[in-house]
Amino acid sequence: MTEEHLQELRAAPRTVISVDAMGGDRGPAAVVAGIALSAAKNPDIRFILHGQRDELEKLVARRKPLRGRVEIRHADGVVTMDAKPSHVMRHGQDTSMWSAIDSVRHGEATVAVSCGNTGALMLLSIMRLRKLPGVNRPAIACLWPSRNPGGFNVMLDVGADVRADERDLLQYALMGTSYARNGLGLDRPRVGLLNVGTEENKGRAELKAAHDLIEAAAEQANYSFVGFVEGGDIPSSKVDVIVTDGFTGNVALKTGEGTAKLLGDFMREAFTATPLSKVAALLAYTSLRRLKKRMDPRRANGGVFLGLNGTVVKSHGSSDATGVSAAVKLAFELAQSGFTERLAARVAASNATGPDALRELAGGRKG
Amino acid sequence: MTEEHLQELRAAPRTVISVDAMGGDRGPAAVVAGIALSAAKNPDIRFILHGQRDELEKLVARRKPLRGRVEIRHADGVVTMDAKPSHVMRHGQDTSMWSAIDSVRHGEATVAVSCGNTGALMLLSIMRLRKLPGVNRPAIACLWPSRNPGGFNVMLDVGADVRADERDLLQYALMGTSYARNGLGLDRPRVGLLNVGTEENKGRAELKAAHDLIEAAAEQANYSFVGFVEGGDIPSSKVDVIVTDGFTGNVALKTGEGTAKLLGDFMREAFTATPLSKVAALLAYTSLRRLKKRMDPRRANGGVFLGLNGTVVKSHGSSDATGVSAAVKLAFELAQSGFTERLAARVAASNATGPDALRELAGGRKG
Repeated sequence: MTEEHLQELRAAPRTVISVDAMGGDRGPAAVVAGIALSAAKNPDIRFILHGQRDELEKLVARRKPLRGRVEIRHADGVVTMDAKPSHVMRHGQDTSMWSAIDSVRHGEATVAVSCGNTGALMLLSIMRLRKLPGVNRPAIACLWPSRNPGGFNVMLDVGADVRADERDLLQYALMGTSYARNGLGLDRPRVGLLNVGTEENKGRAELKAAHDLIEAAAEQANYSFVGFVEGGDIPSSKVDVIVTDGFTGNVALKTGEGTAKLLGDFMREAFTATPLSKVAALLAYTSLRRLKKRMDPRRANGGVFLGLNGTVVKSHGSSDATGVSAAVKLAFELAQSGFTERLAARVAASNATGPDALRELAGGRKG
Repeated sequence: MTEEHLQELRAAPRTVISVDAMGGDRGPAAVVAGIALSAAKNPDIRFILHGQRDELEKLVARRKPLRGRVEIRHADGVVTMDAKPSHVMRHGQDTSMWSAIDSVRHGEATVAVSCGNTGALMLLSIMRLRKLPGVNRPAIACLWPSRNPGGFNVMLDVGADVRADERDLLQYALMGTSYARNGLGLDRPRVGLLNVGTEENKGRAELKAAHDLIEAAAEQANYSFVGFVEGGDIPSSKVDVIVTDGFTGNVALKTGEGTAKLLGDFMREAFTATPLSKVAALLAYTSLRRLKKRMDPRRANGGVFLGLNGTVVKSHGSSDATGVSAAVKLAFELAQSGFTERLAARVAASNATGPDALRELAGGRKG
């Protein structure tokens, strides 16, 4: 490396992402391959990589784009996919996941990325980063392929907590719009509340209360509230942010993924069924490639934990290099936009008014 | 019609389906076109058609396959899509929907079919047909395109009630397996309970209780219990019947339909994007047609109301002739298999053992 090159590196605006190298189904090789992809595309990114030092040093040395851009932190332990989150919380101090989160806690990195055990990652994140003042339940937000110009909608919670009351759902609306502003670049996101019908008298009682709370907070928090939406509206262009509890959101997310996979398989079968259809697949090669890319769940990889003092991106457990790279890209964009601070400010502003004040406002409108 | 032909008709085993002609988005013309499609394919089917007599007589007269096979029952009123179910219950005596259900109540028809307002249809069905002894919450079951040899899985409840406790979920398992036996021809259906993780310690409390109840009843009720399944498993080949509450089930159903529609649109765009891809679409015509059929939501049309003294099939509100015909086909198959009686016998047998006995059994296993 020339002296000039080194100077250039030092002068560049750096964004540091903390990466848990060990937790995924495909092991550290896939993670290192993924961050190498990101590094090759993005000169402004740096990494702190957590895991077995010997193994990681070898893997990193093989990737030219990573030269001089990765700091390795040794961690002996690995959080396995079937580990009990409560056990990890008590005995996981030596794990790469714990270490990756602590880099955000100590301000060395802006965002942490892990492919590991979701439950353990959430519990450790809450314990090490702490919830933002005023947030009762943190949430996981995902990007959902949609008909909107940006190509994605935001949905939350998709699995942080199986329950949510009306105040939690209001917090999700605030956090989700903050994410949509910073992650999708929307000025005034449109929020919908997931329900089984769009009429106001349908659905569960807490949803009616949440409807009024979210409606009342819309002006102050600068979003539009479109009211109740249904499952079929999740990928639609009539909404940007879909708010729901973590049980329903997780079932919807996995149902959508499962349906896409089934139809993808049907399509593959259709284009290998006959010699003619194989020729057709060749002719439509470019279009089919674009279609495949559009349907690729790895593109939307990365559930973002919202409501903590720090941002954590959960990559799919089975992520390959492409998936890890997508999660890192998302982490980088959120870091660059100062997302953590903006979200905290947004939640603080809503607390200044206060959920109780909002609830009264909502109640007052009705009475 | 020759005398011989008439004798033939009289001798044939008849199955009578009661059809609400008026409630759908496309009006009676689509319904009459649909039953004509069914009549053309199936010589053993007869209809009682409910709605405006003048209009229906004209529509029926135009369809040759319906000659001599339709009895029209005049009903002045129509239940609109935005009617309040409670209002229909109090004031809907003159509607075609009420009349269609009453034909089943009076034993003139075996199964009723309607494209109308789901909430009103459910409430009227409960009121006029009554719940089976021992059933607390009736459920709506749907067929879900799957990787299983039969091409479909059963899911319930997809929207009869937004809540279900563990005893309701056990009833759904019993009713769903009965449906899978009669509708899909499976001897020993495999039942899964929808949750956000497959580990036994995940999810909501009532789901853990339901897990134990459904497991304990498996032997007696002749099904296999595969435990918790996730959203991604709904179209899989590891399960035949997916049990969930009506809120979650409805969101999942509509999410799946919305995803399929989005991907279908993406595919259409891909095959009209370039001249080459248009040629490809022509070459792959047969395969694409088969694929389109496989993805066609109209094929799986028909939510079946379970848990009543009589069977009601809810066809999609926007059903065209193909959709109505699919719902009628399903109604016919259920009528032929003596489904109503079999389901009642199954629920009665489980009541003889008693849900309380089952609960004790489940509790005893744990303790």
